[in-house]
Amino acid sequence: MRSVFARTSSTSRSFLFGETADSQLAAPSRRCNLSDDIKIVLAGVGTVGAGVIDLLKRNGDLIAARAGRRPIVTGVSARNRKKDRGIDLSPLTWYDDPVVMARDADYDIYVELIGGTDGPAKVACETALRAGKHVVTANKALIAEHGTALAEAAEAAGGALAFEASVAGGIPILKAMREGLAADRINRVVGILNGTCNYILTAMRRSGRSFDEVLAEAQALGYAEADPSFDVDGIDTAHKLAILTSLAFGIVIDFGGVSVSGIRNVTPLDIQFAEELGYRIKLLGIGALTNAGVEQRVEPCMVRCETPLGSVDGVYNAVMVQSDAADDTTYEGRGAGAMPTASAVIADLIDVTRGRTMPVFGIPAARLEQPVRVDSEERGGAFYVRLNVRDVPGVIADISAALRDEQVSLETVVQRGRSPNDAVPVVLTTHKASAAALRRSLDRVANLDAVLEEPCLIRIEES
Amino acid sequence: MRSVFARTSSTSRSFLFGETADSQLAAPSRRCNLSDDIKIVLAGVGTVGAGVIDLLKRNGDLIAARAGRRPIVTGVSARNRKKDRGIDLSPLTWYDDPVVMARDADYDIYVELIGGTDGPAKVACETALRAGKHVVTANKALIAEHGTALAEAAEAAGGALAFEASVAGGIPILKAMREGLAADRINRVVGILNGTCNYILTAMRRSGRSFDEVLAEAQALGYAEADPSFDVDGIDTAHKLAILTSLAFGIVIDFGGVSVSGIRNVTPLDIQFAEELGYRIKLLGIGALTNAGVEQRVEPCMVRCETPLGSVDGVYNAVMVQSDAADDTTYEGRGAGAMPTASAVIADLIDVTRGRTMPVFGIPAARLEQPVRVDSEERGGAFYVRLNVRDVPGVIADISAALRDEQVSLETVVQRGRSPNDAVPVVLTTHKASAAALRRSLDRVANLDAVLEEPCLIRIEES
Repeated sequence: MRSVFARTSSTSRSFLFGETADSQLAAPSRRCNLSDDIKIVLAGVGTVGAGVIDLLKRNGDLIAARAGRRPIVTGVSARNRKKDRGIDLSPLTWYDDPVVMARDADYDIYVELIGGTDGPAKVACETALRAGKHVVTANKALIAEHGTALAEAAEAAGGALAFEASVAGGIPILKAMREGLAADRINRVVGILNGTCNYILTAMRRSGRSFDEVLAEAQALGYAEADPSFDVDGIDTAHKLAILTSLAFGIVIDFGGVSVSGIRNVTPLDIQFAEELGYRIKLLGIGALTNAGVEQRVEPCMVRCETPLGSVDGVYNAVMVQSDAADDTTYEGRGAGAMPTASAVIADLIDVTRGRTMPVFGIPAARLEQPVRVDSEERGGAFYVRLNVRDVPGVIADISAALRDEQVSLETVVQRGRSPNDAVPVVLTTHKASAAALRRSLDRVANLDAVLEEPCLIRIEES
Repeated sequence: MRSVFARTSSTSRSFLFGETADSQLAAPSRRCNLSDDIKIVLAGVGTVGAGVIDLLKRNGDLIAARAGRRPIVTGVSARNRKKDRGIDLSPLTWYDDPVVMARDADYDIYVELIGGTDGPAKVACETALRAGKHVVTANKALIAEHGTALAEAAEAAGGALAFEASVAGGIPILKAMREGLAADRINRVVGILNGTCNYILTAMRRSGRSFDEVLAEAQALGYAEADPSFDVDGIDTAHKLAILTSLAFGIVIDFGGVSVSGIRNVTPLDIQFAEELGYRIKLLGIGALTNAGVEQRVEPCMVRCETPLGSVDGVYNAVMVQSDAADDTTYEGRGAGAMPTASAVIADLIDVTRGRTMPVFGIPAARLEQPVRVDSEERGGAFYVRLNVRDVPGVIADISAALRDEQVSLETVVQRGRSPNDAVPVVLTTHKASAAALRRSLDRVANLDAVLEEPCLIRIEES
């Protein structure tokens, strides 16, 4: 606490390496028993791991007061013991092997920050859970691929499995859905879940530059990885979406059921047309529970500028949840970074320490339902269509007629520029149409002599 | 569960009035013991109370699965037993007196939806807590005035006191701050917390009409009360802000320390100028922890259109939280209404049923600090200033000079229209300036011959 308060505050002290708890903290509540520390081991000490250690130290008294016990890091594991991480790890027990640490160390909570789907991260978590310990992880790939099995293991052993940091970084979206909306039936969840993609799309819009140019810049600035495919091809968003939809709809995680396209093909031209029409292009992860089943897809979509998701720019993430009682709620914040992620990891630690747990996905893992996959291609909807056409008289009439004949109703038609007999872009936006009708009409359009390329299609999403 | 799932779902059944739990629910998790119902009594059966009963019924199986036990309403209390509420209350034990119900009924959780600060609501909650029961309430006035004492009573008796529904309706903002950001030191919280005011300001902007006209329309539509003062004078926002700041900063609730002004004096002219300058006028509740102490104020402010709060329109609420690790997070949704409020009430019921509690304000009530109040008037900042001046040569030069002499730096100066020797509005926006300097300069401006009225001042808030 700072000195701005009238009453004396408890003195701040470094606790990380096992100092005894501030006795002042132990007194008032029966729920607090600060004489017991809670022992934590940390697997993976990269940016996030160092952030967790730093934040546990910086806000130690506050965290201890909120947790009711003082979290103490007792052991760490990482690949390279010698690496300079800017923090002194020497007082901690070092393990070269995270699985050995899970098996042999003396701890209450295992914090897994290794990453990866099927490597040591998985075995370490399984080992910790089997030993009756609690697991906190930031590993979205692991949860998206093996979350249901891990949840069953946790529930069988009576341990907690918490992964708030795996989706949307510092935004407590999993807690909000699982507990804040626990009275609600959620029917739709839409998110901007990858900060790298949102940064790239925002920079493309602001600068008018191409995907490749902006990606190179983002890599230079450290906003994108050297191999960016995990982010820009939508896989990372799909991992997070699969976790969100499982929690939202009470289904077995179905990462394989997510239809995924990334942002490599988004052009500055489409971004500019979107802007003119009042839209922004965002890479969305969309989960919907319909009468036919569960739809999960990741794709660049147009959303109206003035909607909660339309105005989320740069590295920010946001998730909109539609549910039957609370209606629309939206959650926005930083989706990545050492400190926002550490914030989520430690919030989970506090929950687990308080014993404030419930089944991992809100209901017992054994009761999660197997989803029936719905093909989003078949759902239809409203679309933005960009055509490259030869500027000859009658071309717009021909295109319009092809759509009219299939009962696809147009909202706008824009031809950009005049360039007789040369190629010009023509942009259409449709009202909601059936997928089949749209496909038939666009087949006809693509066959028109004046139409020079396959149409570029972007879904218009209400958000 | 709906029929879209491949596995058989449990059949939906009406449970409200004491049917035995679905046996399928009882099996998988050791945390679930659905053979035990959890008994709820409901004090106050107005819109929200009826919503709670309706939602418990509608999503009964889901709620039971998430709570681990089946919530059963066993008793109700309201003023008029005969009133038609559209629901059959006859199977429930009726109490004319909510305090007698708190004392005599057989229940686990007391749900207080009576409202009011010092009447039966307070005595009923005290009685329930003293009897070792849990209390869930939507009553912001009660918590804002007596929350700390009630929290101490709850913690002393080992009962829960939960009030998610008291702030921002269906948005789980208290849970997000108390648990989701539990690792963080929060230093600022800014909210649009009153749907009536936000509706009025939005309608004034869209229609160009006056406060009085739009208020009358809002009253006709049921968006504003017959006596609107509680909303439009900012009291309701102040109640909610006092709860947010207590939770955010770990302080004793200090409703008396909130400086409050409402929206009655906001004019269509100021709204229009704001729009031209890229701002929206919003009634904000702002809590800030500074080196000097805790600032709490409610006032109409200008916020930039493109910020998360600037784009929140109509009856929607939103809260932005600034904290040291997660950084900015923003939460948006419906701030009122039967179903969003019922959603929050039942989410609290589920938490309490799961035993997923912690100290009421995140840390034990006895450890909440007494805040040092900071006078926001003394804080300075950036301002919008509208003057009514006689259109004579040199007036803008005189005004600019008065501000320059006090080192108040101007961002924009706009004179609207030309009307020689008649009154015209002149609008200034300042960069950040000290409060004293601003006051001195505006005293000089107000004394200029050409300045016809006291300046109208609206704070420009970064959000």
